[in-house]
Amino acid sequence: MKEIKAFVRPHQADHVIDALESSPDSPGVTVSDVRGFGHPKGGGPARLTERTKLEIVVPDDQVEDVLSAIIEHARTGRFGDGKIFVSDVADAVRIRTGERGAAAVRFPEEA
Amino acid sequence: MKEIKAFVRPHQADHVIDALESSPDSPGVTVSDVRGFGHPKGGGPARLTERTKLEIVVPDDQVEDVLSAIIEHARTGRFGDGKIFVSDVADAVRIRTGERGAAAVRFPEEA
Amino acid sequence: MKEIKAFVRPHQADHVIDALESSPDSPGVTVSDVRGFGHPKGGGPARLTERTKLEIVVPDDQVEDVLSAIIEHARTGRFGDGKIFVSDVADAVRIRTGERGAAAVRFPEEA
Ligand SMILES: Nc1ncnc2c1ncn2[C@@H]1O[C@H](COP(=O)(O)OP(=O)(O)OP(=O)(O)O)[C@@H](O)[C@H]1O
Ligand SMILES: Nc1ncnc2c1ncn2[C@@H]1O[C@H](COP(=O)(O)OP(=O)(O)OP(=O)(O)O)[C@@H](O)[C@H]1O
Ligand SMILES: Nc1ncnc2c1ncn2[C@@H]1O[C@H](COP(=O)(O)OP(=O)(O)OP(=O)(O)O)[C@@H](O)[C@H]1O
Ligand SMILES: [Mg+2]
Ligand SMILES: [Mg+2]
Ligand SMILES: [Mg+2]
Repeated sequence: MKEIKAFVRPHQADHVIDALESSPDSPGVTVSDVRGFGHPKGGGPARLTERTKLEIVVPDDQVEDVLSAIIEHARTGRFGDGKIFVSDVADAVRIRTGERGAAAVRFPEEA
Repeated sequence: MKEIKAFVRPHQADHVIDALESSPDSPGVTVSDVRGFGHPKGGGPARLTERTKLEIVVPDDQVEDVLSAIIEHARTGRFGDGKIFVSDVADAVRIRTGERGAAAVRFPEEA
Repeated sequence: MKEIKAFVRPHQADHVIDALESSPDSPGVTVSDVRGFGHPKGGGPARLTERTKLEIVVPDDQVEDVLSAIIEHARTGRFGDGKIFVSDVADAVRIRTGERGAAAVRFPEEA
């Protein structure tokens, strides 16, 4: 499993979330509000600007699809469009059923 | 070391935190407010609902105890009870003392 | 690449961020507000206190410099100075350009 952590423009976040929600895999998504800066553009000191953070844990075979959906709906072509980080997830648990591993990030069996 | 990242119902969060705090290992805990959705239940589009995020980094031998405590106090048996993710932590630092590694997530030596 | 996740005193956060921003590598930084407790000091039950969370993803060769900068500017010598966790990042994407891997956390080529 992988965690996909994306920092996107607040204005683009709903587009990204809708795209993820309506995708065939429709992974779970967690959203939170953050602020940050990327690489300064040589101008004055970088100021912290508002960003929306998305955390999406998926089985390995869904990573590239989720990355493409995020990039397609988050990109405007200007500086500050955002960053995505991918990292390994060793285990997962669905609290209601106790399901462990990748089953916990796929459709629940008896849904 | 492992990071345990749990998304639970806000109403259950205090129960979970109290249980962790009073457990023998009593790991450090970080709490924040997020919103999200899990796997849609076939009804209309999933709406983002409020969740409490817990981040708990522990030595490997405490992982299962912490998972059990979270599940026991977060579960209501209904859809949306929550998700837990476990991932590897390569290093840790206690800023006050400079302690590195698992020492930084155990009781400080000279506490 | 590594993710450096630091929980510091809100009063110290600006010092840490300024130091990171003006450092030669000047990595990207994401900031958010959390609450938490570390290891209880034997007194009453630990109360959740406000902390500032910093997430900083850098190429491996910048990790120790970033850790030093955080410790130097976050430390006051008292209990509660904070904790830092280091974990592996498998991939990164700069959304504007589609750059992948460590290039996405270095200065953009055509900045
Ligand atoms: N290395 C990083 N570590 C942590 N967060 C980052 C990092 N880089 C970017 N971010 C987060 O992503 C947001 C957007 O960054 P941004 O898109 O400006 O990256 P950039 O590398 O400067 O790319 P661009 O050249 O397209 O602006 C930042 O506000 C910050 O929240
Ligand atoms: N794959 C995921 N990636 C990131 N966050 C997730 C994921 N799955 C769930 N979450 C987070 O956990 C919260 C609760 O999810 P939920 O308990 O509904 O999961 P579920 O898989 O639908 O299980 P259930 O069938 O018990 O409802 C969501 O609101 C979201 O914040
Ligand atoms: N093991 C942990 N897992 C997750 N978050 C933690 C952990 N330990 C500390 N934190 C976060 O770091 C913040 C500061 O912790 P703190 O500095 O009190 O750690 P400590 O181990 O008690 O060190 P000290 O002895 O210097 O107080 C906490 O409020 C919490 O947000
Ligand atoms: Mg930028
Ligand atoms: Mg659900
Ligand atoms: Mg403490």
